[in-house]
Amino acid sequence: MLSIEKYQQEFTAYLKAYSTVKEPKNLYEPIDYILALGGKRLRPVLTLMTTDVFNGDYQEALNAALSIEVFHNFSLVHDDIMDDAPLRRGHKTVHEKWDVNTGILSGDAMLIMAYQLFENYDVNTFQALAKLFSKTALEVCEGQQYDVDFETRNDVTIPEYLKMIEYKTAVLVGAAMKMGAIIAGASIEDQHSIYEFGKNLGIAFQLQDDYLDAFGDPKTFGKQVGGDIIENKKTYLYLKALEFSNDNDKVKLAQLFASHPQNTDSKIKEAKALFVASGSAEETKQAIKNYTSNAFKVLETLNISEEKKMLLKAFGNNLMNRTV
Amino acid sequence: MLSIEKYQQEFTAYLKAYSTVKEPKNLYEPIDYILALGGKRLRPVLTLMTTDVFNGDYQEALNAALSIEVFHNFSLVHDDIMDDAPLRRGHKTVHEKWDVNTGILSGDAMLIMAYQLFENYDVNTFQALAKLFSKTALEVCEGQQYDVDFETRNDVTIPEYLKMIEYKTAVLVGAAMKMGAIIAGASIEDQHSIYEFGKNLGIAFQLQDDYLDAFGDPKTFGKQVGGDIIENKKTYLYLKALEFSNDNDKVKLAQLFASHPQNTDSKIKEAKALFVASGSAEETKQAIKNYTSNAFKVLETLNISEEKKMLLKAFGNNLMNRTV
Repeated sequence: MLSIEKYQQEFTAYLKAYSTVKEPKNLYEPIDYILALGGKRLRPVLTLMTTDVFNGDYQEALNAALSIEVFHNFSLVHDDIMDDAPLRRGHKTVHEKWDVNTGILSGDAMLIMAYQLFENYDVNTFQALAKLFSKTALEVCEGQQYDVDFETRNDVTIPEYLKMIEYKTAVLVGAAMKMGAIIAGASIEDQHSIYEFGKNLGIAFQLQDDYLDAFGDPKTFGKQVGGDIIENKKTYLYLKALEFSNDNDKVKLAQLFASHPQNTDSKIKEAKALFVASGSAEETKQAIKNYTSNAFKVLETLNISEEKKMLLKAFGNNLMNRTV
Repeated sequence: MLSIEKYQQEFTAYLKAYSTVKEPKNLYEPIDYILALGGKRLRPVLTLMTTDVFNGDYQEALNAALSIEVFHNFSLVHDDIMDDAPLRRGHKTVHEKWDVNTGILSGDAMLIMAYQLFENYDVNTFQALAKLFSKTALEVCEGQQYDVDFETRNDVTIPEYLKMIEYKTAVLVGAAMKMGAIIAGASIEDQHSIYEFGKNLGIAFQLQDDYLDAFGDPKTFGKQVGGDIIENKKTYLYLKALEFSNDNDKVKLAQLFASHPQNTDSKIKEAKALFVASGSAEETKQAIKNYTSNAFKVLETLNISEEKKMLLKAFGNNLMNRTV
């Protein structure tokens, strides 16, 4: 097993060798650009690590890891168009640097290129990876659609919200790990378990993102603290606060999350006070713990050494102990 | 072998059974809508017919035929956004009926669904179809990019133009037929030959579309006659006219194809006169004949009965004898 940093380095080197700008340049340059923007490379690292965990050779997982990363970046390019986002990782988004049409077409090409990377595997592995990929990619689209739908709905339930983040974010983490297991030749049971581990960790991670958006330390949290509140996003914190509040506070919350004040500081302060007073902040922390512990419980069933289970657990704890 | 109409009926029935609107509705309703708009279903019919030609069971080709049609409609949805087209087959385009974001996301889902349809085949067929599909789909994206690039270029050469229509249109016709051959278990040589037949016929068909746009009968040509001239599209007719004209007419042509007059009738008349006088109209007819005859020459090498070769030739002639 390598360190996370080492997996990142290996992956980045492989990605670099993959990214060559072919003709037509206007199609392939934006692809090269977005793939080079960086990010934590969390998903591909998980693929490589999982192959190692199941006693495979992580180098054989490089193409699957690359497929996951290309797909993830495809979804960023198209989502950024839909959200009209100007920046991604501190740089111009593809549709800002070029235009919307370029973003659409280059994104389409990336989705196809992600499939092509599976052609480096034998026929049975190819089929297993491509099937898992299609199922996951379609769920990511469904998750994105639910997210869009929820913006204009006032009756979103907690189960609906959890399904949305599961599809939009968590299934890709599960699939990244399952691909690693498939390549290592792990049993069907272990493939299923590691998927569940990744999915539960992915849900916990997204709920923590919701939590940190309100209660994170501005110095260490990557995004603007309070961003979800400013944008009236109905996150887990908001939905649970609505559920737990008395009628008076329910009205206050709903009004707050329909407002667009110039001065956002007092809005953020008020929202956070309601999150705490209602018990939603505490309940969200508990939900994060529950999903993390669900993930760790799955680990026990895996047919791998205790040492490797500890490594996966350490990775999970590391991920979930981002400074609040 | 069935008649074209019978293949169309069988395919349409299969498509109808496939199209069920699942949740989230805002993702799947636009997919159902565009697939139900109709069209000639030329590509899927070719897949079914080719399986029959190579002594397979056309019913086994229904899922591959459906994949080709779903992909074709995906490309229409995304192209219509890029072209800002209000209408498709006489109905509102997806991004007009819903919005651009819906068009992007529903299109993405269709591309994934096209891959999923190959899961109905055994593992070797799955791989053969998916590999061919990825290669073709990426070429279609490249063709679309060349088409976009050519809009703002004044130095497009004839070989570049031919490559653009080959990628944007013809390779999908070739792939539709090759899939039919793969499913029938045809030899690698026959698979390659039928792909070349379809590709050459596809190029001929697109060149004919260029020709009919200027010289077609308004009563029988599906689109507005002169549409390409009004939009200053640099088609084969235009590029050849530019090549064949004297310096004086070159300037006239270039000016004409940079103008946006209110009264389009005289612009169309002038352009057509230059197409004829330069010899471009005649040369375009010759190019159509050449590509059609290239396609028919490939037929001779196929390992099938003379009767079936005649059927494919009849289909080709039927396609190329659309009333001028």
